[in-house]
Amino acid sequence: MKQVVDMSWIDKMAFETDMDGHKVVIDASEESGGSDLGPRPKKLMLTALAGCTGIDVILILKKMKVVPEAFNVIVEADDTEEHPKHYYKAKIIYQFKGKNLPKDKLEKAIKLSGEKYCGVAAVYKKAMEMETEIRIIE
Amino acid sequence: MKQVVDMSWIDKMAFETDMDGHKVVIDASEESGGSDLGPRPKKLMLTALAGCTGIDVILILKKMKVVPEAFNVIVEADDTEEHPKHYYKAKIIYQFKGKNLPKDKLEKAIKLSGEKYCGVAAVYKKAMEMETEIRIIE
Repeated sequence: MKQVVDMSWIDKMAFETDMDGHKVVIDASEESGGSDLGPRPKKLMLTALAGCTGIDVILILKKMKVVPEAFNVIVEADDTEEHPKHYYKAKIIYQFKGKNLPKDKLEKAIKLSGEKYCGVAAVYKKAMEMETEIRIIE
Repeated sequence: MKQVVDMSWIDKMAFETDMDGHKVVIDASEESGGSDLGPRPKKLMLTALAGCTGIDVILILKKMKVVPEAFNVIVEADDTEEHPKHYYKAKIIYQFKGKNLPKDKLEKAIKLSGEKYCGVAAVYKKAMEMETEIRIIE
């Protein structure tokens, strides 16, 4: 299946697109000559990854009847020194909050997302070192 | 340099984060059990690429004193059939509108973004087939 994104230049360094009926604006900071109408584009790569695996994990856990009180997906990525500066390493931290959460099920959900469901991770794994960490807060 | 994104689960399948002071929400469609509060995450990979190279190109062209009437960056990506379904091929179409636009300068700006500046393209090139196309509308 082919997927398409069409971004229109608005003004200065700002671009806009419609994604699934939602307006998304990307812009550079004011210091870089932009107007800060939206976030910077590169970090969106990390948001795509966090959102993709986050949705997988919460969906799998729901099927396992596991509902955390709170859940965060934190992605930390390292940038190269040389140009083009790009991510060469990323760590996904899955942080759950809740009493008596079954660690084995949380781990299984994370593994299933990484190996079977998350299309963003599947691409990034080919291009960078990836690791995962699980944190449970009672 | 390390970059970090921290996404919080809101409800059902929706996640939220703050990016450079802008709230970004990711969600699944209603048919998939979400509430459609924001776009799907995987396609954000394409938005990141279009925004990244779009900002580069418009900035380089500005330095060259070239200002198109309109400019779009269209990214088309092909998904694998097998799971995890992920992009294995992408085409970036740079579409400029304007009279007497200098094609050599447009091409140079695109080349510089792809080879020297765009950190998103640098990652994706390691993981998928990438090609570019230039369209000029008078």
